[in-house]
Amino acid sequence: MRLVRFQKNGGAALGIRLGDSIVDLSQAMPGAPDDLADLLRQGPAALAQAVEAARAAPVSAHIAPGGMNFLPPIARPGKIICLGVNFLDHAKEASHQKPAHLMIFMRGGTSLVGHGAPLVRPNCSDQFDFEAELAVFIGATGRHLKPENALSIVAGYAAFNDGSVRDVQIRVSQWTLGKNFDGTGGVGPEFVSADELPPGAAGLRLQTRLNGEVMQDANTADMLFDVRETLVILSECMTLEPGDMIIMGTPAGVGLLRNPPLFMKPGDVCEIEIERIGILRNPIVQEAPAF
Amino acid sequence: MRLVRFQKNGGAALGIRLGDSIVDLSQAMPGAPDDLADLLRQGPAALAQAVEAARAAPVSAHIAPGGMNFLPPIARPGKIICLGVNFLDHAKEASHQKPAHLMIFMRGGTSLVGHGAPLVRPNCSDQFDFEAELAVFIGATGRHLKPENALSIVAGYAAFNDGSVRDVQIRVSQWTLGKNFDGTGGVGPEFVSADELPPGAAGLRLQTRLNGEVMQDANTADMLFDVRETLVILSECMTLEPGDMIIMGTPAGVGLLRNPPLFMKPGDVCEIEIERIGILRNPIVQEAPAF
Repeated sequence: MRLVRFQKNGGAALGIRLGDSIVDLSQAMPGAPDDLADLLRQGPAALAQAVEAARAAPVSAHIAPGGMNFLPPIARPGKIICLGVNFLDHAKEASHQKPAHLMIFMRGGTSLVGHGAPLVRPNCSDQFDFEAELAVFIGATGRHLKPENALSIVAGYAAFNDGSVRDVQIRVSQWTLGKNFDGTGGVGPEFVSADELPPGAAGLRLQTRLNGEVMQDANTADMLFDVRETLVILSECMTLEPGDMIIMGTPAGVGLLRNPPLFMKPGDVCEIEIERIGILRNPIVQEAPAF
Repeated sequence: MRLVRFQKNGGAALGIRLGDSIVDLSQAMPGAPDDLADLLRQGPAALAQAVEAARAAPVSAHIAPGGMNFLPPIARPGKIICLGVNFLDHAKEASHQKPAHLMIFMRGGTSLVGHGAPLVRPNCSDQFDFEAELAVFIGATGRHLKPENALSIVAGYAAFNDGSVRDVQIRVSQWTLGKNFDGTGGVGPEFVSADELPPGAAGLRLQTRLNGEVMQDANTADMLFDVRETLVILSECMTLEPGDMIIMGTPAGVGLLRNPPLFMKPGDVCEIEIERIGILRNPIVQEAPAF
Protein backbone atom coordinates (compact mmCIF):
# COMPACT_ATOMS: atom_id res chain seq x y z
CA MET A 1 0.00 0.00 0.00
CA ARG A 2 1.01 3.57 -0.60
CA LEU A 3 0.04 6.27 1.86
CA VAL A 4 0.39 10.06 1.89
CA ARG A 5 -0.34 12.79 4.41
CA PHE A 6 -1.62 16.14 3.19
CA GLN A 7 -2.98 19.48 4.31
CA LYS A 8 -6.73 19.59 4.80
CA ASN A 9 -8.88 22.34 6.33
CA GLY A 10 -5.94 23.86 8.17
CA GLY A 11 -5.04 20.45 9.57
CA ALA A 12 -3.92 17.18 8.06
CA ALA A 13 -5.37 13.96 6.69
CA LEU A 14 -3.96 10.64 5.56
CA GLY A 15 -4.64 9.35 2.07
CA ILE A 16 -4.32 5.93 0.45
CA ARG A 17 -3.23 5.76 -3.17
CA LEU A 18 -5.54 3.69 -5.37
CA GLY A 19 -4.38 3.82 -8.98
CA ASP A 20 -4.08 7.44 -10.03
CA SER A 21 -6.06 8.94 -7.20
CA ILE A 22 -5.71 9.35 -3.46
CA VAL A 23 -8.55 8.31 -1.17
CA ASP A 24 -8.99 10.73 1.71
CA LEU A 25 -8.94 8.44 4.75
CA SER A 26 -10.76 10.98 6.89
CA GLN A 27 -13.76 10.47 4.57
CA ALA A 28 -13.26 6.75 3.95
CA MET A 29 -12.85 5.79 7.61
CA PRO A 30 -14.48 8.20 10.07
CA GLY A 31 -12.28 8.70 13.11
CA ALA A 32 -9.16 7.72 11.16
CA PRO A 33 -5.95 9.23 12.54
CA ASP A 34 -4.38 12.12 10.64
CA ASP A 35 -0.81 10.95 11.22
CA LEU A 36 0.90 7.72 10.16
CA ALA A 37 2.45 7.31 13.63
CA ASP A 38 -1.01 7.01 15.18
CA LEU A 39 -2.07 4.50 12.52
CA LEU A 40 1.05 2.41 13.14
CA ARG A 41 0.48 2.48 16.91
CA GLN A 42 -2.95 0.91 16.33
CA GLY A 43 -1.18 -2.32 15.47
CA PRO A 44 -0.31 -4.39 12.42
CA ALA A 45 -3.89 -4.75 11.16
CA ALA A 46 -4.49 -0.99 10.94
CA LEU A 47 -2.74 -0.45 7.60
CA ALA A 48 -4.75 -3.25 5.96
CA GLN A 49 -7.99 -1.90 7.44
CA ALA A 50 -7.18 1.54 6.02
CA VAL A 51 -6.70 0.05 2.55
CA GLU A 52 -10.00 -1.83 2.82
CA ALA A 53 -11.79 1.34 3.87
CA ALA A 54 -10.22 3.22 0.96
CA ARG A 55 -11.37 0.57 -1.52
CA ALA A 56 -14.92 0.76 -0.15
CA ALA A 57 -15.00 4.56 -0.17
CA PRO A 58 -17.36 6.51 -2.44
CA VAL A 59 -16.00 8.40 -5.42
CA SER A 60 -16.41 11.65 -3.47
CA ALA A 61 -13.52 10.56 -1.23
CA HIS A 62 -11.15 10.28 -4.22
CA ILE A 63 -8.80 13.23 -4.80
CA ALA A 64 -6.42 13.90 -7.68
CA PRO A 65 -2.95 14.17 -6.14
CA GLY A 66 -2.06 17.10 -8.41
CA GLY A 67 -3.42 19.84 -6.17
CA MET A 68 -2.37 18.35 -2.85
CA ASN A 69 -0.03 19.97 -0.36
CA PHE A 70 1.91 17.01 0.95
CA LEU A 71 3.13 16.74 4.53
CA PRO A 72 5.64 14.37 6.15
CA PRO A 73 3.82 11.05 6.80
CA ILE A 74 4.65 11.51 10.50
CA ALA A 75 4.66 15.05 11.88
CA ARG A 76 6.68 14.32 15.03
CA PRO A 77 8.38 10.92 14.83
CA GLY A 78 9.26 9.40 18.20
CA LYS A 79 12.89 9.18 17.15
CA ILE A 80 14.55 10.07 13.86
CA ILE A 81 17.78 8.08 13.84
CA CYS A 82 20.16 8.96 11.00
CA LEU A 83 23.16 6.87 9.93
CA GLY A 84 26.42 8.63 9.13
CA VAL A 85 28.92 7.34 6.56
CA ASN A 86 26.98 4.24 5.48
CA PHE A 87 28.20 3.96 1.86
CA LEU A 88 31.83 3.09 1.16
CA ASP A 89 32.10 5.51 -1.78
CA HIS A 90 30.88 8.36 0.45
CA ALA A 91 33.26 7.29 3.23
CA LYS A 92 36.12 7.51 0.71
CA GLU A 93 35.15 10.93 -0.69
CA ALA A 94 34.88 12.22 2.90
CA SER A 95 38.27 10.69 3.80
CA HIS A 96 36.68 8.54 6.48
CA GLN A 97 37.91 5.07 7.30
CA LYS A 98 35.53 2.28 6.40
CA PRO A 99 33.46 2.35 9.61
CA ALA A 100 33.83 -0.66 11.87
CA HIS A 101 30.80 0.44 13.88
CA LEU A 102 27.42 1.94 13.19
CA MET A 103 27.46 5.72 13.64
CA ILE A 104 24.28 7.71 14.24
CA PHE A 105 22.95 11.17 14.96
CA MET A 106 19.35 12.27 15.41
CA ARG A 107 16.98 14.78 13.89
CA GLY A 108 14.02 16.44 15.54
CA GLY A 109 10.61 16.41 13.88
CA THR A 110 10.78 20.20 13.50
CA SER A 111 13.29 19.70 10.66
CA LEU A 112 10.90 17.76 8.38
CA VAL A 113 9.00 18.93 5.30
CA GLY A 114 6.86 16.96 2.87
CA HIS A 115 7.10 16.42 -0.88
CA GLY A 116 6.69 19.62 -2.86
CA ALA A 117 7.22 21.90 0.13
CA PRO A 118 10.23 24.19 0.07
CA LEU A 119 13.53 23.14 1.57
CA VAL A 120 14.77 26.20 3.42
CA ARG A 121 18.31 27.57 3.10
CA PRO A 122 18.92 29.36 6.40
CA ASN A 123 20.15 32.94 6.49
CA CYS A 124 23.20 32.01 8.52
CA SER A 125 24.83 29.84 5.84
CA ASP A 126 25.19 29.37 2.09
CA GLN A 127 26.36 25.75 2.41
CA PHE A 128 23.01 23.97 2.10
CA ASP A 129 23.66 20.46 0.80
CA PHE A 130 21.53 17.50 -0.36
CA GLU A 131 21.80 13.86 0.72
CA ALA A 132 19.70 11.13 -0.91
CA GLU A 133 18.65 8.54 1.66
CA LEU A 134 16.26 5.70 2.31
CA ALA A 135 13.83 6.31 5.20
CA VAL A 136 12.62 3.32 7.22
CA PHE A 137 9.39 3.53 9.22
CA ILE A 138 9.10 1.37 12.35
CA GLY A 139 5.72 -0.29 12.84
CA ALA A 140 6.21 -2.46 15.94
CA THR A 141 8.16 -2.39 19.19
CA GLY A 142 11.56 -4.07 19.04
CA ARG A 143 14.51 -4.56 21.40
CA HIS A 144 17.41 -6.99 21.05
CA LEU A 145 16.25 -7.98 17.59
CA LYS A 146 17.98 -10.84 15.82
CA PRO A 147 18.80 -10.98 12.11
CA GLU A 148 15.99 -13.45 11.52
CA ASN A 149 13.24 -11.26 13.01
CA ALA A 150 14.59 -7.71 12.68
CA LEU A 151 12.79 -6.79 9.45
CA SER A 152 9.45 -7.81 10.96
CA ILE A 153 9.21 -4.44 12.77
CA VAL A 154 9.55 -2.41 9.55
CA ALA A 155 6.23 -0.99 8.37
CA GLY A 156 7.53 0.67 5.21
CA TYR A 157 9.85 3.05 3.42
CA ALA A 158 10.07 6.48 1.80
CA ALA A 159 12.61 8.71 0.07
CA PHE A 160 14.45 11.22 2.26
CA ASN A 161 16.60 14.29 1.60
CA ASP A 162 18.89 14.72 4.62
CA GLY A 163 19.48 18.41 3.91
CA SER A 164 22.60 19.54 5.74
CA VAL A 165 23.96 22.95 6.67
CA ARG A 166 27.58 21.97 6.17
CA ASP A 167 29.56 24.71 7.89
CA VAL A 168 27.39 24.39 11.00
CA GLN A 169 27.57 20.58 10.78
CA ILE A 170 31.34 20.26 10.65
CA ARG A 171 32.62 23.19 12.73
CA VAL A 172 32.31 20.94 15.80
CA SER A 173 32.75 17.18 16.19
CA GLN A 174 29.05 16.47 16.63
CA TRP A 175 27.02 16.98 13.44
CA THR A 176 23.60 17.27 15.07
CA LEU A 177 23.09 21.05 14.98
CA GLY A 178 23.81 21.30 11.24
CA LYS A 179 21.32 18.49 10.63
CA ASN A 180 18.44 20.09 12.49
CA PHE A 181 17.55 23.34 10.78
CA ASP A 182 13.83 23.79 10.25
CA GLY A 183 12.67 22.76 6.78
CA THR A 184 15.78 20.82 5.78
CA GLY A 185 14.63 17.19 5.97
CA GLY A 186 12.47 16.30 2.98
CA VAL A 187 10.43 13.09 3.19
CA GLY A 188 7.93 11.49 0.84
CA PRO A 189 5.95 11.71 -1.28
CA GLU A 190 4.61 8.32 -0.30
CA PHE A 191 5.08 5.86 2.51
CA VAL A 192 5.39 2.51 0.71
CA SER A 193 4.58 -0.51 2.85
CA ALA A 194 7.31 -3.10 3.23
CA ASP A 195 5.36 -5.86 1.45
CA GLU A 196 5.64 -3.94 -1.85
CA LEU A 197 9.47 -3.97 -1.81
CA PRO A 198 12.36 -6.43 -1.53
CA PRO A 199 13.36 -7.34 2.05
CA GLY A 200 15.13 -4.37 3.63
CA ALA A 201 14.42 -2.35 0.45
CA ALA A 202 17.72 -3.73 -0.86
CA GLY A 203 18.81 -3.51 -4.47
CA LEU A 204 17.01 -0.26 -5.32
CA ARG A 205 18.60 2.52 -7.33
CA LEU A 206 18.94 5.78 -5.37
CA GLN A 207 19.51 9.10 -7.13
CA THR A 208 19.77 12.82 -6.44
CA ARG A 209 19.06 15.25 -9.25
CA LEU A 210 19.65 18.97 -8.77
CA ASN A 211 17.87 20.99 -11.44
CA GLY A 212 17.73 17.76 -13.46
CA GLU A 213 21.44 17.01 -13.26
CA VAL A 214 22.42 13.75 -11.57
CA MET A 215 24.43 14.40 -8.40
CA GLN A 216 24.25 11.05 -6.62
CA ASP A 217 23.60 7.69 -8.25
CA ALA A 218 23.91 4.53 -6.20
CA ASN A 219 22.06 1.45 -5.03
CA THR A 220 20.65 0.62 -1.61
CA ALA A 221 22.48 -2.73 -1.93
CA ASP A 222 25.74 -0.83 -1.37
CA MET A 223 25.04 0.22 2.20
CA LEU A 224 27.74 -0.83 4.65
CA PHE A 225 25.10 -1.57 7.30
CA ASP A 226 21.89 -2.73 5.63
CA VAL A 227 18.45 -2.26 7.16
CA ARG A 228 18.43 -5.65 8.87
CA GLU A 229 21.85 -5.26 10.52
CA THR A 230 21.09 -1.65 11.47
CA LEU A 231 17.95 -2.75 13.31
CA VAL A 232 19.89 -5.44 15.17
CA ILE A 233 22.60 -2.99 16.28
CA LEU A 234 20.25 -0.12 17.19
CA SER A 235 17.96 -2.41 19.16
CA GLU A 236 20.87 -3.73 21.23
CA CYS A 237 20.95 -0.19 22.60
CA MET A 238 17.41 1.12 22.49
CA THR A 239 13.79 0.13 22.09
CA LEU A 240 12.48 0.91 18.63
CA GLU A 241 8.83 1.92 18.61
CA PRO A 242 6.00 2.46 16.12
CA GLY A 243 6.42 5.99 14.78
CA ASP A 244 10.23 5.93 14.90
CA MET A 245 12.15 6.52 11.67
CA ILE A 246 15.61 5.41 10.60
CA ILE A 247 17.42 7.32 7.83
CA MET A 248 19.95 5.04 6.20
CA GLY A 249 22.81 7.34 5.11
CA THR A 250 23.90 8.77 1.78
CA PRO A 251 26.19 7.64 -1.07
CA ALA A 252 28.95 9.63 -2.79
CA GLY A 253 28.31 12.83 -4.71
CA VAL A 254 27.26 15.30 -2.01
CA GLY A 255 27.79 18.95 -2.86
CA LEU A 256 30.40 19.69 -0.18
CA LEU A 257 32.83 17.11 -1.56
CA ARG A 258 32.46 17.96 -5.26
CA ASN A 259 35.24 19.84 -7.00
CA PRO A 260 34.37 22.70 -6.86
CA PRO A 261 31.77 22.36 -4.07
CA LEU A 262 28.18 22.83 -5.17
CA PHE A 263 25.37 23.85 -2.82
CA MET A 264 21.63 24.25 -3.18
CA LYS A 265 20.41 27.81 -3.65
CA PRO A 266 17.04 29.52 -3.89
CA GLY A 267 15.30 28.68 -7.16
CA ASP A 268 16.87 25.22 -7.41
CA VAL A 269 14.77 22.06 -7.45
CA CYS A 270 16.14 18.95 -5.79
CA GLU A 271 14.82 15.48 -6.54
CA ILE A 272 15.56 12.29 -4.63
CA GLU A 273 14.40 9.20 -6.49
CA ILE A 274 14.40 5.67 -5.12
CA GLU A 275 13.41 2.93 -7.54
CA ARG A 276 9.93 1.50 -6.82
CA ILE A 277 9.49 4.00 -3.96
CA GLY A 278 9.09 7.34 -5.71
CA ILE A 279 10.43 10.79 -6.46
CA LEU A 280 10.70 13.35 -3.67
CA ARG A 281 10.83 16.81 -5.25
CA ASN A 282 11.44 20.04 -3.32
CA PRO A 283 12.15 23.59 -4.43
CA ILE A 284 14.79 25.49 -2.50
CA VAL A 285 13.89 28.84 -0.93
CA GLN A 286 15.78 31.35 1.16
CA GLU A 287 14.67 31.64 4.77
CA ALA A 288 12.52 34.69 5.43
CA PRO A 289 14.42 37.45 7.24
CA ALA A 290 14.11 37.28 11.03
CA PHE A 291 12.71 40.34 12.80
CA MET B 1 5.44 25.17 41.55
CA ARG B 2 6.83 21.68 41.79
CA LEU B 3 5.37 18.89 39.72
CA VAL B 4 5.98 15.13 39.55
CA ARG B 5 4.73 12.33 37.34
CA PHE B 6 4.12 8.92 38.86
CA GLN B 7 2.72 5.47 38.14
CA LYS B 8 -0.97 5.07 38.81
CA ASN B 9 -3.27 2.16 37.95
CA GLY B 10 -0.90 0.84 35.30
CA GLY B 11 -0.71 4.28 33.73
CA ALA B 12 0.55 7.64 34.86
CA ALA B 13 -0.64 10.76 36.65
CA LEU B 14 0.77 14.19 37.33
CA GLY B 15 1.09 15.47 40.88
CA ILE B 16 1.62 18.91 42.36
CA ARG B 17 3.73 19.22 45.49
CA LEU B 18 2.05 21.15 48.32
CA GLY B 19 4.23 21.14 51.41
CA ASP B 20 5.10 17.56 52.28
CA SER B 21 2.48 15.88 50.16
CA ILE B 22 1.72 15.46 46.48
CA VAL B 23 -1.73 16.26 45.16
CA ASP B 24 -2.85 13.79 42.51
CA LEU B 25 -3.88 16.03 39.62
CA SER B 26 -6.07 13.34 38.11
CA GLN B 27 -8.26 13.67 41.21
CA ALA B 28 -7.87 17.41 41.69
CA MET B 29 -8.64 18.36 38.09
CA PRO B 30 -10.76 15.82 36.20
CA GLY B 31 -9.53 15.45 32.64
CA ALA B 32 -6.05 16.65 33.58
CA PRO B 33 -3.31 15.37 31.28
CA ASP B 34 -1.03 12.62 32.60
CA ASP B 35 2.12 14.06 30.99
CA LEU B 36 3.81 17.41 31.53
CA ALA B 37 4.21 17.90 27.77
CA ASP B 38 0.44 17.91 27.31
CA LEU B 39 0.04 20.35 30.19
CA LEU B 40 2.67 22.68 28.68
CA ARG B 41 1.00 22.51 25.26
CA GLN B 42 -2.19 23.83 26.84
CA GLY B 43 -0.50 27.20 27.18
CA PRO B 44 1.10 29.37 29.84
CA ALA B 45 -1.95 29.47 32.13
CA ALA B 46 -2.18 25.68 32.47
CA LEU B 47 0.52 25.32 35.13
CA ALA B 48 -1.09 27.98 37.32
CA GLN B 49 -4.51 26.38 36.88
CA ALA B 50 -3.09 23.03 37.95
CA VAL B 51 -1.70 24.60 41.13
CA GLU B 52 -5.05 26.22 41.87
CA ALA B 53 -6.83 22.92 41.39
CA ALA B 54 -4.34 21.19 43.66
CA ARG B 55 -4.89 23.78 46.40
CA ALA B 56 -8.65 23.32 46.17
CA ALA B 57 -8.44 19.51 46.17
CA PRO B 58 -9.87 17.43 49.02
CA VAL B 59 -7.54 15.68 51.46
CA SER B 60 -8.28 12.39 49.67
CA ALA B 61 -6.27 13.65 46.67
CA HIS B 62 -3.15 14.15 48.81
CA ILE B 63 -0.53 11.38 48.63
CA ALA B 64 2.63 10.92 50.66
CA PRO B 65 5.50 10.89 48.14
CA GLY B 66 7.23 8.07 50.03
CA GLY B 67 5.48 5.20 48.28
CA MET B 68 5.38 6.73 44.80
CA ASN B 69 6.98 5.25 41.71
CA PHE B 70 8.20 8.34 39.91
CA LEU B 71 8.27 8.66 36.12
CA PRO B 72 10.00 11.18 33.86
CA PRO B 73 7.84 14.35 33.82
CA ILE B 74 7.56 13.91 30.03
CA ALA B 75 7.40 10.37 28.68
CA ARG B 76 8.35 11.19 25.10
CA PRO B 77 9.76 14.71 24.78
CA GLY B 78 9.48 16.26 21.33
CA LYS B 79 13.23 16.76 21.25
CA ILE B 80 15.86 16.04 23.89
CA ILE B 81 18.80 18.27 22.96
CA CYS B 82 21.98 17.60 24.93
CA LEU B 83 24.99 19.91 25.10
CA GLY B 84 28.46 18.40 24.87
CA VAL B 85 31.51 19.91 26.58
CA ASN B 86 29.77 22.87 28.22
CA PHE B 87 31.98 23.29 31.30
CA LEU B 88 35.60 24.43 30.90
CA ASP B 89 36.92 22.06 33.60
CA HIS B 90 35.28 19.11 31.81
CA ALA B 91 36.65 20.31 28.46
CA LYS B 92 40.12 20.34 30.01
CA GLU B 93 39.87 16.89 31.60
CA ALA B 94 38.63 15.52 28.25
CA SER B 95 41.48 17.28 26.37
CA HIS B 96 39.01 19.28 24.31
CA GLN B 97 39.69 22.83 23.22
CA LYS B 98 37.48 25.44 24.81
CA PRO B 99 34.56 25.19 22.37
CA ALA B 100 34.00 28.17 20.12
CA HIS B 101 30.61 26.83 19.10
CA LEU B 102 27.71 25.10 20.75
CA MET B 103 27.88 21.33 20.28
CA ILE B 104 24.83 19.10 20.63
CA PHE B 105 23.60 15.55 20.31
CA MET B 106 20.13 14.18 20.94
CA ARG B 107 18.52 11.51 23.07
CA GLY B 108 15.32 9.62 22.38
CA GLY B 109 12.57 9.41 24.97
CA THR B 110 13.14 5.65 25.25
CA SER B 111 16.34 6.38 27.21
CA LEU B 112 14.60 8.15 30.11
CA VAL B 113 13.80 6.88 33.62
CA GLY B 114 12.34 8.70 36.60
CA HIS B 115 13.63 9.32 40.11
CA GLY B 116 14.08 6.11 42.09
CA ALA B 117 13.85 3.86 39.04
CA PRO B 118 16.92 1.80 38.17
CA LEU B 119 19.54 3.07 35.77
CA VAL B 120 20.39 0.08 33.61
CA ARG B 121 23.94 -1.01 32.83
CA PRO B 122 23.68 -2.79 29.48
CA ASN B 123 25.08 -6.28 28.99
CA CYS B 124 27.32 -5.14 26.14
CA SER B 125 29.51 -2.82 28.24
CA ASP B 126 30.94 -2.30 31.71
CA GLN B 127 31.68 1.40 31.10
CA PHE B 128 28.46 2.93 32.42
CA ASP B 129 29.20 6.50 33.49
CA PHE B 130 27.31 9.30 35.27
CA GLU B 131 26.96 12.95 34.20
CA ALA B 132 25.26 15.53 36.42
CA GLU B 133 23.30 18.00 34.32
CA LEU B 134 20.61 20.66 34.45
CA ALA B 135 17.49 19.83 32.40
CA VAL B 136 15.52 22.71 30.88
CA PHE B 137 11.85 22.23 29.93
CA ILE B 138 10.49 24.32 27.05
CA GLY B 139 7.00 25.73 27.61
CA ALA B 140 6.37 27.88 24.54
CA THR B 141 7.26 27.93 20.87
CA GLY B 142 10.41 29.84 19.99
CA ARG B 143 12.48 30.54 16.86
CA HIS B 144 15.15 33.19 16.35
CA LEU B 145 15.02 34.12 20.01
CA LYS B 146 16.97 37.13 21.22
CA PRO B 147 18.86 37.35 24.51
CA GLU B 148 16.19 39.62 25.96
CA ASN B 149 13.29 37.21 25.32
CA ALA B 150 14.92 33.78 25.20
CA LEU B 151 14.26 32.77 28.80
CA SER B 152 10.55 33.51 28.38
CA ILE B 153 10.03 30.12 26.69
CA VAL B 154 11.47 28.16 29.63
CA ALA B 155 8.78 26.50 31.74
CA GLY B 156 11.07 24.99 34.34
CA TYR B 157 14.00 22.81 35.33
CA ALA B 158 14.94 19.42 36.77
CA ALA B 159 18.04 17.41 37.63
CA PHE B 160 19.32 15.02 34.97
CA ASN B 161 21.79 12.13 34.92
CA ASP B 162 23.09 11.83 31.35
CA GLY B 163 24.14 8.19 31.81
CA SER B 164 26.66 7.29 29.12
CA VAL B 165 27.93 3.96 27.80
CA ARG B 166 31.44 5.22 27.20
CA ASP B 167 32.99 2.61 24.93
CA VAL B 168 29.99 2.73 22.61
CA GLN B 169 29.95 6.54 22.81
CA ILE B 170 33.54 7.15 21.80
CA ARG B 171 34.36 4.31 19.40
CA VAL B 172 32.98 6.50 16.58
CA SER B 173 33.01 10.27 16.12
CA GLN B 174 29.30 10.70 16.81
CA TRP B 175 28.36 10.07 20.46
CA THR B 176 24.64 9.50 19.95
CA LEU B 177 24.46 5.69 20.13
CA GLY B 178 26.28 5.53 23.48
CA LYS B 179 23.90 8.18 24.84
CA ASN B 180 20.72 6.35 23.91
CA PHE B 181 20.62 3.06 25.78
CA ASP B 182 17.27 2.34 27.39
CA GLY B 183 17.14 3.32 31.06
CA THR B 184 20.25 5.50 31.11
CA GLY B 185 18.82 9.04 31.32
CA GLY B 186 17.59 9.78 34.82
CA VAL B 187 15.36 12.83 35.26
CA GLY B 188 13.57 14.26 38.27
CA PRO B 189 12.35 13.94 40.88
CA GLU B 190 10.51 17.21 40.39
CA PHE B 191 9.94 19.67 37.59
CA VAL B 192 10.52 23.05 39.26
CA SER B 193 8.89 25.99 37.50
CA ALA B 194 11.19 28.76 36.34
CA ASP B 195 9.65 31.38 38.66
CA GLU B 196 11.06 29.52 41.69
CA LEU B 197 14.67 29.84 40.51
CA PRO B 198 17.16 32.49 39.41
CA PRO B 199 16.97 33.45 35.70
CA GLY B 200 18.40 30.58 33.64
CA ALA B 201 18.83 28.55 36.85
CA ALA B 202 22.25 30.20 37.14
CA GLY B 203 24.39 30.10 40.25
CA LEU B 204 23.16 26.74 41.56
CA ARG B 205 25.48 24.09 42.96
CA LEU B 206 25.48 20.86 40.97
CA GLN B 207 26.79 17.60 42.43
CA THR B 208 27.10 13.91 41.65
CA ARG B 209 27.47 11.47 44.53
CA LEU B 210 28.14 7.79 43.84
CA ASN B 211 27.39 5.68 46.91
CA GLY B 212 27.63 8.89 48.93
CA GLU B 213 31.04 9.93 47.62
CA VAL B 214 31.24 13.24 45.76
CA MET B 215 32.24 12.70 42.11
CA GLN B 216 31.29 16.02 40.50
CA ASP B 217 30.90 19.33 42.29
CA ALA B 218 30.35 22.49 40.27
CA ASN B 219 28.02 25.40 39.75
CA THR B 220 25.59 26.10 36.91
CA ALA B 221 27.18 29.57 36.71
CA ASP B 222 30.26 27.92 35.19
CA MET B 223 28.60 26.77 31.97
CA LEU B 224 30.35 27.99 28.83
CA PHE B 225 26.99 28.50 27.12
CA ASP B 226 24.36 29.42 29.68
CA VAL B 227 20.66 28.70 29.25
CA ARG B 228 19.88 32.05 27.67
CA GLU B 229 22.67 31.90 25.08
CA THR B 230 21.93 28.24 24.35
CA LEU B 231 18.31 29.08 23.54
CA VAL B 232 19.40 31.89 21.21
CA ILE B 233 21.82 29.64 19.32
CA LEU B 234 19.53 26.60 19.12
CA SER B 235 16.60 28.68 17.95
CA GLU B 236 18.64 30.18 15.13
CA CYS B 237 18.57 26.64 13.75
CA MET B 238 15.33 25.08 14.89
CA THR B 239 11.94 25.79 16.38
CA LEU B 240 11.79 24.96 20.06
CA GLU B 241 8.40 23.68 21.15
CA PRO B 242 6.50 22.95 24.37
CA GLY B 243 7.55 19.48 25.48
CA ASP B 244 11.14 19.82 24.24
CA MET B 245 13.96 19.41 26.74
CA ILE B 246 17.51 20.80 26.74
CA ILE B 247 20.19 19.06 28.82
CA MET B 248 22.91 21.54 29.64
CA GLY B 249 26.12 19.47 29.80
CA THR B 250 28.27 18.16 32.64
CA PRO B 251 31.22 19.50 34.68
CA ALA B 252 34.51 17.72 35.45
CA GLY B 253 34.69 14.52 37.43
CA VAL B 254 33.07 11.95 35.15
CA GLY B 255 34.10 8.35 35.77
CA LEU B 256 35.84 7.78 32.42
CA LEU B 257 38.38 10.54 33.04
CA ARG B 258 39.19 9.72 36.67
CA ASN B 259 42.50 8.06 37.47
CA PRO B 260 41.84 5.17 37.57
CA PRO B 261 38.51 5.26 35.68
CA LEU B 262 35.47 4.53 37.81
CA PHE B 263 32.18 3.30 36.39
CA MET B 264 28.74 2.63 37.86
CA LYS B 265 28.00 -1.03 38.64
CA PRO B 266 24.98 -2.96 39.85
CA GLY B 267 24.23 -2.23 43.49
CA ASP B 268 25.55 1.32 43.31
CA VAL B 269 23.33 4.33 44.02
CA CYS B 270 23.91 7.52 42.05
CA GLU B 271 22.62 10.89 43.20
CA ILE B 272 22.52 14.11 41.20
CA GLU B 273 21.75 17.12 43.35
CA ILE B 274 21.07 20.63 42.09
CA GLU B 275 20.65 23.32 44.72
CA ARG B 276 17.01 24.46 45.09
CA ILE B 277 15.92 21.91 42.46
CA GLY B 278 16.31 18.58 44.20
CA ILE B 279 18.07 15.25 44.50
CA LEU B 280 17.68 12.68 41.73
CA ARG B 281 18.53 9.25 43.17
CA ASN B 282 18.77 6.08 41.09
CA PRO B 283 20.05 2.59 41.92
CA ILE B 284 22.13 0.87 39.26
CA VAL B 285 21.04 -2.56 37.99
CA GLN B 286 22.41 -4.94 35.41
CA GLU B 287 20.30 -5.35 32.28
CA ALA B 288 18.29 -8.57 32.28
CA PRO B 289 19.79 -11.18 29.94
CA ALA B 290 18.35 -11.09 26.42
CA PHE B 291 16.75 -14.28 25.12
